[in-house]
Parts: sequence; C-alpha cells; structure tokens
Amino acid sequence: METKITSATREVIIGGDRPTVLIGERINPSGKKKLGEALKEDNLDIVRQEAKAQTEAGADILDVNVNIFGIDEPDLLPKAVKAVMESSELPLCIDSANPEALEAAIKVYKGKPLVNSVTGEEHSLAKILPVIKKHGTAVVGLVQDDNGIPKTPEARLAVAKKIVERAEKLGIPREDIIIDCLCLAVGAETTSGTTALGTIRLIKQELGVNMTLAVSNISFGMPDRDLLNNAFVAACIAAGITCVIVDVKKIRPAVQAADVLMNHDKHARRYMESYRQRQQEQTQK
Amino acid sequence: METKITSATREVIIGGDRPTVLIGERINPSGKKKLGEALKEDNLDIVRQEAKAQTEAGADILDVNVNIFGIDEPDLLPKAVKAVMESSELPLCIDSANPEALEAAIKVYKGKPLVNSVTGEEHSLAKILPVIKKHGTAVVGLVQDDNGIPKTPEARLAVAKKIVERAEKLGIPREDIIIDCLCLAVGAETTSGTTALGTIRLIKQELGVNMTLAVSNISFGMPDRDLLNNAFVAACIAAGITCVIVDVKKIRPAVQAADVLMNHDKHARRYMESYRQRQQEQTQK
Repeated sequence: METKITSATREVIIGGDRPTVLIGERINPSGKKKLGEALKEDNLDIVRQEAKAQTEAGADILDVNVNIFGIDEPDLLPKAVKAVMESSELPLCIDSANPEALEAAIKVYKGKPLVNSVTGEEHSLAKILPVIKKHGTAVVGLVQDDNGIPKTPEARLAVAKKIVERAEKLGIPREDIIIDCLCLAVGAETTSGTTALGTIRLIKQELGVNMTLAVSNISFGMPDRDLLNNAFVAACIAAGITCVIVDVKKIRPAVQAADVLMNHDKHARRYMESYRQRQQEQTQK
Repeated sequence: METKITSATREVIIGGDRPTVLIGERINPSGKKKLGEALKEDNLDIVRQEAKAQTEAGADILDVNVNIFGIDEPDLLPKAVKAVMESSELPLCIDSANPEALEAAIKVYKGKPLVNSVTGEEHSLAKILPVIKKHGTAVVGLVQDDNGIPKTPEARLAVAKKIVERAEKLGIPREDIIIDCLCLAVGAETTSGTTALGTIRLIKQELGVNMTLAVSNISFGMPDRDLLNNAFVAACIAAGITCVIVDVKKIRPAVQAADVLMNHDKHARRYMESYRQRQQEQTQK
C-alpha cells in the first residue's frame, strides 16, 4: 500500500518497502513554552526556524501544530502553514482536531497534505472525514473512540477498521488512510510497548494500511529516553510501521539502521550517506 | 518454556518472560589475534581477564571457546573452563563442535552448563546429542544442516524441528534445547535481517523453545556497527528471542531498553539500576 503526500515541488511516498518516512514533530507547542508564547503573539519566527532545522536534519514531512489555549486556531494554523511553506519545500502534515482550522489550512496549502487527525469518535468521523474527502488529502486515523484508547491490539484493530470503513464509504481511498497505533508511556503502563507492537502487527496483517506512531511517547517520564526510543523505533519498524512522528535529528540514525535490517534501504545507500555525513560533521568540529 | 543453567553457586533461567539473558562472547579467539596467540602457548591470562571483565559488565553466562588452528582442543578446553570458573561465579556456555573436547570440559565443570552447539548435520546430531543426554546439559541447536544454512525462515524452522525431534527421541527435554536462529552479515546478503527475524517469529510460534542469536554478525563489514547491532537486538527481542550471544558491555543498555518495552523487566527495575550505575561512572570520570 502506498500513500502519496506532496508539496508544490516534492513528493513523498509512504509504504511499499521504502525507507521509513520521518515526520518532524517539533512544530508543536505542547511542552514547548517559548514556542507557545510566540504563537500567542502571532510570532512565527520559531516555526520558521524549526521548519529549516528539521529539513536540514533529514525530515521527509513536517508536522504543523499550533494548538495552544488562547489562540484562534482557524486564523493561526493557515498562517503557520504559509510560514512553513516559505521556509521548507517539504510536504506538510497539518495537525489539528478542529475542522475549520484544518479546512482553512488546507486551502492555503500547495499540494496534497497529510491531515492529522481523525479518530474513531463519532463527532470526529462526522466532522473531519468530509473535509478529507472534499479536498482529497490523506489522513491520519487515531485508534481511539468514544470509549477512549482501547487496551488490547484486537480492540485497537476494531477502531482502525471502523475508521477505514467509514472513510471508504465516503469515497476516501484506503491508501490515503494512515493509522496511528498510539503508544502510551511504558513508565505508567508496563504493557504499553507490547500493546503498540501487537497493534502494528495485527493491523498490518488485517488491514494492510500504512501506519504511524509518535514513538517517543513510550519513554515519557523515564531516564535516558533516547535509549528507549531507539530500541522502540527499531522494534516498530520490524513490526511493520511505515512512518514515524519524531524528533528527526535525534532518532534518524536508529531509523536508518532499522531500515537496513528490514531491507527498506537498498544496498544501505541512505545508511552509508548518513554515516559519511556524521563523520564529516565530527571532523569539522 | 524455561531453560535452567547453573554454576556451583548461581542459577540462570532463560525464557518465561524474564529479562533477556546475556551470554558474553569475548572468550573466543576468532578475530582476536592476541587471545589466539596466548591460547597456542597454553597461556590463559587473557581468558581470566575477559571472564572478570564480562562478569563486571553484567553478563549472565560466559561463552568459552578456544578453538583455533594448532591447539589441542580436548586438552585446552577443560583448562580454559577451569580458569574461567576460578575467575567468575557465572554459569558457562561451553563452545565447541568437538565432542571429545566438550565431554572433557563438561567433566571438569561444576554445575549444568549450556553446550554450544549441535547442528542439524547428521554427523553432529550423531556425535553431540549423546554427550548432552549423558551429562544432562542444555544445548544450543544451530539451524544449519548438511545442505548449509537455509535461506528461508520456513527451511530454518524445519532444521530446528529436526534437532528438537532427534533430541527428544534420545530423552533430552525440549526445555534444554535453545535454537540459534543464525544471522549472516546484512552487508553481504540484504535479506539477512528479515530472514533472522522471520525465523525467530516462526520458531516461537511453532516450537515455543528458547532461542539465541549472535546478533553482531548482522553488522559485519558495515560502519557504525553498534548502531545496527542495537537496532537489531531490539527487533530480535521484540520478535521473541530470549538470550543473546554478545559483547555485553557494548550492547547491554539496548537490551535492557528492549526488555522494558517488552515488559520483561518488571517496573523497569534493571533499567533504572543500570542507568544509575552509568550516571555514577560518568560522575567518577
């Protein structure tokens, strides 16, 4: 299954045994005080800086999220999308639960974006899917519904199925749906890792759609987070995930290693390129 | 399935949702010139040093291999086993394809060792399994037969089945067989990673026995080997491997991270202990 996302000048294809697609997560005020304060003042300088930095760090797609209490999302999200388009040629993942904000942002966007996200909740299916259909975008579907986040892979598969069925009913093709398998902090819930990995394997087998995960959630509250994140991303890629929402600069080497191991990086071309680049950077220091 | 390995004073249990067991690989002259030369002179100083160093680094079991051209293995292997027993309390993995050397080493060993290894080759099954049965040890079974190392997970499962059946016929219990799924260098054969991982998943499902892997073989000939080894070991543990033959000091953090993710390390107790230890070591530097 292949999902195509585009900008005015670039095309990214997710899936089909290609290298894992890296969606840069850093344009998001959650947990970032400075960015949050700047957004409240309509100041998009940090957004532009992060767009450039993540592009240089090797992101394939940039997630754009401006949702913080006190801002007018339908006004600010399209402005942020414009600012990012001025700073990077990468395709975007427009990140909001607000259908008006999404529609306003999609309208200014040049290309076919990924929209993040719809859930299995009735109000979300009813409000978000028509926007996706109308504008022909791709969409991330979160495996949570009106009862919350299911605890078992089987129950998460059921939510994924519901999202896929409802989307297909509206005429949204299955290849434009990317399921976010969700992962909670393993420090809070010891089965979080096994549940996420079980969900990935089950959805791969039963639905065959592309899947994503914000992998670093797994290590929230734990020390040495990179160690856990690197191990987890390798296990997720081996289980069948095809794109990840991540801090690209930190996790890219581990993703590229996993891509070599899964034969997603033919002749280790990317791996070798990145290795040489890191060597060069170290020499220059 | 639980495999019990003992020394005079220690017991290690492999499997049953416990943390991944680390078998220290460094007492092995293959690729280690200094150790090889010392062994040829009957000098076991490096063997003793490595036994101590790997024990301090957190190994659970020590592999002892002295096989190098020009030495008398049935004479040297028991001497090396004695030297290691004097230097470490850990249970041992006695590593040789020579049945006389194995039997001589088992006789001097105090406890129930792991023997590494039998293969699916007729001459190996015929010579090694009776030694295992006679002394009641556990044994590593390599998934290769008279035709070599099979290329597919299904063919490797067939060899594993053959080893298990032949062992059980002799009265060796299934829990005393640990299948080595084998991995070749991904730089030479791009499907090495997917084949090894597929083999692990299939054997877990079909035979349920404990499994091991010398994971660092995967990165032979590639740059930044630790990056590949860490990603691979995480994927292997997520797929169901229960012990690994490794350079313990290098790979232990990644293994412990994967054990947290797979809920093999209850409440991340080991992970936290090792984290604090690393912090202390850094402070002391």
